[in-house]
Amino acid sequence: MHSFQELSIAFANYFGTDHFPQTPGSLYDPNRYFLQLGGKRIRPILVLMGNELFDDIKTDAWPVANAIELFHNFTLIHDDIMDAAPLRRGMPTVHEKYGTHTALLAGDVMLVKAYEYLNQVDKEIASRIIKWFNTTATQVCEGQQLDMDFEKRDDVALEEYIHMIALKTSVLLAGALRMGAIIGGAGKRNADHLYEFGKNLGIAFQIQDDYLDAFGDPEKFGKQVGGDIISNKKTFLLINALSNGNSEQVSAIKSLLEKQAPDKVEKMLGLYRQTGADTLTRNLQKEFFDKAMFHLEEIAVVSSRKKPLMELAEFLIARDY
Amino acid sequence: MHSFQELSIAFANYFGTDHFPQTPGSLYDPNRYFLQLGGKRIRPILVLMGNELFDDIKTDAWPVANAIELFHNFTLIHDDIMDAAPLRRGMPTVHEKYGTHTALLAGDVMLVKAYEYLNQVDKEIASRIIKWFNTTATQVCEGQQLDMDFEKRDDVALEEYIHMIALKTSVLLAGALRMGAIIGGAGKRNADHLYEFGKNLGIAFQIQDDYLDAFGDPEKFGKQVGGDIISNKKTFLLINALSNGNSEQVSAIKSLLEKQAPDKVEKMLGLYRQTGADTLTRNLQKEFFDKAMFHLEEIAVVSSRKKPLMELAEFLIARDY
Repeated sequence: MHSFQELSIAFANYFGTDHFPQTPGSLYDPNRYFLQLGGKRIRPILVLMGNELFDDIKTDAWPVANAIELFHNFTLIHDDIMDAAPLRRGMPTVHEKYGTHTALLAGDVMLVKAYEYLNQVDKEIASRIIKWFNTTATQVCEGQQLDMDFEKRDDVALEEYIHMIALKTSVLLAGALRMGAIIGGAGKRNADHLYEFGKNLGIAFQIQDDYLDAFGDPEKFGKQVGGDIISNKKTFLLINALSNGNSEQVSAIKSLLEKQAPDKVEKMLGLYRQTGADTLTRNLQKEFFDKAMFHLEEIAVVSSRKKPLMELAEFLIARDY
Repeated sequence: MHSFQELSIAFANYFGTDHFPQTPGSLYDPNRYFLQLGGKRIRPILVLMGNELFDDIKTDAWPVANAIELFHNFTLIHDDIMDAAPLRRGMPTVHEKYGTHTALLAGDVMLVKAYEYLNQVDKEIASRIIKWFNTTATQVCEGQQLDMDFEKRDDVALEEYIHMIALKTSVLLAGALRMGAIIGGAGKRNADHLYEFGKNLGIAFQIQDDYLDAFGDPEKFGKQVGGDIISNKKTFLLINALSNGNSEQVSAIKSLLEKQAPDKVEKMLGLYRQTGADTLTRNLQKEFFDKAMFHLEEIAVVSSRKKPLMELAEFLIARDY
């Protein structure tokens, strides 16, 4: 058994080769540039952990981990275009540095490269792996579209928002774990529980991310607190506040959304507290975290094998900042 | 054995189902819209023809044909974004009708859907089929990037241009035939010759397309003659004229490219004739067509099986308009 940190080092070594040909550089240099911006590589490591929950890490796990990481980077390149984001990890995004058209194509070819790695998997399990990869990829696209749809609406219900977040961010974590489980020889029941662990953990993580953006300690959080409030981003806090506030509080929130007042963050934080949205959001996070842990419990393997996943879940969620 | 027309009807029936879920409609309606714009469906039919050159059409050929057609439509949706094209088959393009971000995502999910169909192929040949699909898809992306790169250069050599056209348009025809050949049980030598047939035929077709845009009979050609000249598009004619004209002719061409004179088309056609670019382009077309037919000849099957491909090649190229 390996810890997340050990697998992280091993994956960094494996992934650190050049995935693309030299020519045409106008297409592949953008991909090389984007991959060297780094990232925590959580998703591919989940493939390895999903595998190791059931058996020693198999040869097949590595190309699948590569495929998952390349898929994730493909979505980031295209999402950055859609969000018109100038920066990613503090550096210019691909479309900013190389133009939108090249970013579009670089993303496309990154996705095809992911399928090249998937095609290295042993034929006895390839079809099951590719099936889950496709399902996950489709759901991530659906989640991104719903996210764009929701930005134009001010009546998004909490359940709709949870569904969108699950598609956009959590199913990839869940799918990575499930592909690892398939490689490790897990049966359907265990693979289903592992999938639900990943999905619920991902939702809990996203709720926490929204919470910390508003109420986190700026020094520990590592980015500007209140950024979501300033940019009018839909978050669990905002949706909870809109659906639980009284009519006076809801109008106050809506008028804050309409203009950039200098005390906007402070006032919105006050409204989140008055409407109870802060507590509701914390409770929601706990609810999904507990669901995740329930599904991890349910997996029928000796509990020592679950230790790395348990530690990862606590590391991701139990942060006090 | 079936003719192109017979296979065309059969494929239209098979392909005419709904490939996408109902929800979210904001993502999938654009895909349904684009697919119902139609098209000649040449590429998927080449899968069926490649298969039938060697054996009766197998079950596997149909989902692969679907995958090829969806891949082709994915490239059209994304290319239309890059070309800022307002119309496709006389109707608004996806980005024009639904916005660029949705068009980007709709294309992405169309590509994933192509891989879903590929994943239905029998596991004994799935890996070879997916390998060729990936190779082809990668080359198409490379071709599109080179095309964009070349638009910014005025010193593109004929060989570079042929290479770009081969990647952007011909390898998909060639790849479709090869996937069909693999399904039909062809050996490597036969599959290689069939691939080269498709690749050279595709290049010959593109050269003819460039030629007819300038010198075709407008009534038979079905679109505005001289459109490439008006839009300064790089074509085989322009590249031949620039590389074979004397210095006076080259300056005349370059000054025509710089402004939109009312007699631009007429003058450019004159220069294509004076530089011999018209004859060079016709000869080049014949050269690639002959190469294609040579490779078709070389395929070791009874000649009656080659008849539908021979007829298709002559239909595509020997048009007198």
